Amino acid sequence: MTQLTIDLDQQSYPIVIRPHALDEKGLIESFVNGSQLVIVSNETVAPLYLSSLKAAIDSKQVQTIVLPDGEQYKNMESLMRIFDSLIQNQCHRDVTLLALGGGVIGDMTGFAAACYMRGVNFIQVPTTLLAQVDASVGGKTGINHFQAKNLIGSFHQPTAVIIDPLTLNSLPDREYRSGIAEILKYGLIQDRPFFDWMRANCQALMDRNPLILSEAIQRSCENKATIVAQDERETGLRALLNFGHTLGHAIETLTNYKHFLHGEAVSIGMCLAAKLSVTMGLCDRVIEQQIIDSLESYKLPTKIPAQLKAEEIVLLMRNDKKNLSGQLRMILLERIGAAKIVNLEDETLLLECLGCR
Amino acid sequence: MTQLTIDLDQQSYPIVIRPHALDEKGLIESFVNGSQLVIVSNETVAPLYLSSLKAAIDSKQVQTIVLPDGEQYKNMESLMRIFDSLIQNQCHRDVTLLALGGGVIGDMTGFAAACYMRGVNFIQVPTTLLAQVDASVGGKTGINHFQAKNLIGSFHQPTAVIIDPLTLNSLPDREYRSGIAEILKYGLIQDRPFFDWMRANCQALMDRNPLILSEAIQRSCENKATIVAQDERETGLRALLNFGHTLGHAIETLTNYKHFLHGEAVSIGMCLAAKLSVTMGLCDRVIEQQIIDSLESYKLPTKIPAQLKAEEIVLLMRNDKKNLSGQLRMILLERIGAAKIVNLEDETLLLECLGCR
Repeated sequence: MTQLTIDLDQQSYPIVIRPHALDEKGLIESFVNGSQLVIVSNETVAPLYLSSLKAAIDSKQVQTIVLPDGEQYKNMESLMRIFDSLIQNQCHRDVTLLALGGGVIGDMTGFAAACYMRGVNFIQVPTTLLAQVDASVGGKTGINHFQAKNLIGSFHQPTAVIIDPLTLNSLPDREYRSGIAEILKYGLIQDRPFFDWMRANCQALMDRNPLILSEAIQRSCENKATIVAQDERETGLRALLNFGHTLGHAIETLTNYKHFLHGEAVSIGMCLAAKLSVTMGLCDRVIEQQIIDSLESYKLPTKIPAQLKAEEIVLLMRNDKKNLSGQLRMILLERIGAAKIVNLEDETLLLECLGCR
Repeated sequence: MTQLTIDLDQQSYPIVIRPHALDEKGLIESFVNGSQLVIVSNETVAPLYLSSLKAAIDSKQVQTIVLPDGEQYKNMESLMRIFDSLIQNQCHRDVTLLALGGGVIGDMTGFAAACYMRGVNFIQVPTTLLAQVDASVGGKTGINHFQAKNLIGSFHQPTAVIIDPLTLNSLPDREYRSGIAEILKYGLIQDRPFFDWMRANCQALMDRNPLILSEAIQRSCENKATIVAQDERETGLRALLNFGHTLGHAIETLTNYKHFLHGEAVSIGMCLAAKLSVTMGLCDRVIEQQIIDSLESYKLPTKIPAQLKAEEIVLLMRNDKKNLSGQLRMILLERIGAAKIVNLEDETLLLECLGCR
């Protein structure tokens, strides 16, 4: 059994990582305080795992909300459906919400829990690799505004994160690799040994070897936990987690979230950040190549699509919500395992990097 | 000049109470961190105070959102209008929102600030007595669900509360008296000297004597500040502030928010709570009469409308979101200045009190 703890001032909580955690008798139940449990899932995940999860819960009043699957449903309408259902079922302040699904379900359920009666308990049961190593840990919740991703949200920590690596067996290849990109990110920004380990275990991970995979998830969660514990509200250090994300978000937006999964866009973003780090003289060119090689070994994209215009990309990057007062801010590398926040006062070098594709 | 401080673990903030605070050069500006300030107001208040407030601000980029006036607009649509406007104006994470209006504007603006980019600064400039002595202090924010008031919201503390008692000159009599009910509440639950002072100064307050009025606001804010500082998230003590509110909310709901202002409903609720306290043997009958007399001297209603059915009232009270796990919980009095939380295991006495009208 693996159990980590996210160590926060106000509230600490465990991350349980083990096979069959999802249907282990009594495990999830032990994190439900009141008598009411409401499971929020989607039409893809619910048929796979809902009944076994429910079968493992004995003594609670369990209700279910099944939403349509997809980023396009991470909006106010879905959120209102959750509230409507909670009211209809006369859910009180001691209700616990449980998110069973990927990042979309986790973010939305967490936000509903943050706002219902000004805050109720919730449990994350992430079923995608991306959600297991990133979205479910750290308390960021929210929905999209039709003009901007994750624009409406809050920080609301779960009571527990329950990760069952066996749920990944049903994950499509592209989604699986998309999660790998975020795992590699942890190595790049602060954990060189983990990055080296990821390179050494590429084949085992591509084969979804359960032992190796569990270790990758655990080390990712440990990395994220360390950062979140130091900076829950993203006033400083936590920004490092956005490595590759400023460009990643811009690419996702410009392609209407249709051509790239999140991790794929982040993969391309990390390559650009590496290139810019080299161009600005922050790190050695050999590092950029190592990063490209490792991403490619996991069959992740590394090049910005040719049809996207550099100027449009920069405009979106500048308006990313991570930027303060409109100044472009990026996470760059000094070496593998050491990232830093850089305010780009001059955008020339960035345009240059975007131009030479 | 009067300045109080709300003392919270994570964040303390001042409450400034003085005539002309609203249009004092540099005052509001001193609480705006970034370069962008967005004022949210309504169609009634904006024509009265918006231009003088804006005239007192020099160095910030100021934008304005004017919403329709009324509790029926405290909903998701108005909230989305605020978000739309913030995005359209390219507001960044360091934007400050300012609520200029009563409780509806304050609650909605605060909730928008809580959720926009997972939390931005906001300033409360309450212009009704109810908002000045209650809603603007303590960080409760939210909107209504069509089936339940304040169901969707969060705790988000303002950077400052700026109270200008002169704004009350434009307040209609009924709204003014509605605020008085919440002021009397502080005396009843924990401040006997303040309650006596309120009885002694009834005429001066009904005449809106500015000096006496400022003192009443200040002592109310002090009372609320003491409670909120001890229990920001309403896990215990803060529940005392709901004295009169469980019935008050039920009355508001059953009359569709059309016949009673919030303070009027609370006034009736406090009388019922006093009667129940007597019936349960918690306090002396003479206290009930003192409470009725003082509320009547401020021309506040004290009787439950005859057409409301006791059973319907109890059903709503039981479903009030303040109740945990469906058990009816009320704030009752042991004497004037001493309230306590009581779980009503038996509802017979409550039905009796509701019956004998």
